[in-house]
Amino acid sequence: MDFICLDLEGVLVPEIWIGVAERTGIEALRATTRDIPDYRQLMDRRLGILDQHGLTLNDIQETIGALTPLAGAAGFLETLRGRYQVVILSDTFYEFAAPLMRRLKLPTLFCHRLEIDGDGRITGYRLRMADHKRQAVRAFKSLNFHVMAAGDSYNDTSMLTEADRGFLFRPPENVIAEFPQFPVLTEYDDLLAAFEQAAST
Amino acid sequence: MDFICLDLEGVLVPEIWIGVAERTGIEALRATTRDIPDYRQLMDRRLGILDQHGLTLNDIQETIGALTPLAGAAGFLETLRGRYQVVILSDTFYEFAAPLMRRLKLPTLFCHRLEIDGDGRITGYRLRMADHKRQAVRAFKSLNFHVMAAGDSYNDTSMLTEADRGFLFRPPENVIAEFPQFPVLTEYDDLLAAFEQAAST
Repeated sequence: MDFICLDLEGVLVPEIWIGVAERTGIEALRATTRDIPDYRQLMDRRLGILDQHGLTLNDIQETIGALTPLAGAAGFLETLRGRYQVVILSDTFYEFAAPLMRRLKLPTLFCHRLEIDGDGRITGYRLRMADHKRQAVRAFKSLNFHVMAAGDSYNDTSMLTEADRGFLFRPPENVIAEFPQFPVLTEYDDLLAAFEQAAST
Repeated sequence: MDFICLDLEGVLVPEIWIGVAERTGIEALRATTRDIPDYRQLMDRRLGILDQHGLTLNDIQETIGALTPLAGAAGFLETLRGRYQVVILSDTFYEFAAPLMRRLKLPTLFCHRLEIDGDGRITGYRLRMADHKRQAVRAFKSLNFHVMAAGDSYNDTSMLTEADRGFLFRPPENVIAEFPQFPVLTEYDDLLAAFEQAAST
């Protein structure tokens, strides 16, 4: 019985922090896990920058509310959910993802949570667990699912390795070079066909 | 971070086999896990009856296609999915559930699969794993989710026991009597309020 794990940013929606950087004009917020693979280091830096600029969760949510899924992503995800069980595995936060999840018709999402104080200031974050994408794939396999996965970045490669079949979707050149074992796809129709071909049933 | 596991039949949609019994007029198909707790024994009996009457997967799918979610279920599930991560844990089969899943806007479903021959005859079934509802709750807990669950029947009680918080929704009297430890709710609004109150965040 086939199961699909998908990364969120870069696969179904734009990179959220790049969107925030563009709309706030704060260039330093452009860095992603593509640039700084250590996620905690990256997040501490991001929250420090928000604080320096006096930006609250509300400000960031308004910015994210203006983002839309990538062209074709909503239809792709709906087709996929009609054929397979799908869970999105992301290193974003539920508070950030919420408006985008509504646009994607509320798929199941495993990610993390922010800590917010009474003034709406983002004071920290709770990672649900280390290497959670890999652990989720392992859990689905332990429940006797045949797991296929797709992601675009460094933080997806342990998930792709753990999955029965892993695919890179629109990855940057350095990820392609470092992980030549994963097929690279750039169009949703091709990714859908790759899943169909790799499916167990 | 809160996670909800819901039973399908009796909680969100009618009992599928009772619907099939009503539409085909085959009274013997009315038995459910409420009547025969041993699931394999129940399923072998059901498939034997279908075969005696020459009913194929297509016939059954047409019948199920005419069923609709319980009154209020679709709105309840949508509200729930906007607030929590939700997975449906059911002992039905993907082939049977498909039309009902579309009506519920494609939630994630863990269940089983049928075996079908070239003539569309249901020749058998593959249970994904024994006691899969309990094992799924255990897996979600191992991923650091706070798991709440609701179901109506015998085959839900191991899931309710394993969950951080378990609720019975519209259960029969014998289940209420045998499992007094679980709060009993009969309306979606009350179940929603119970989840809200039991939530960790």
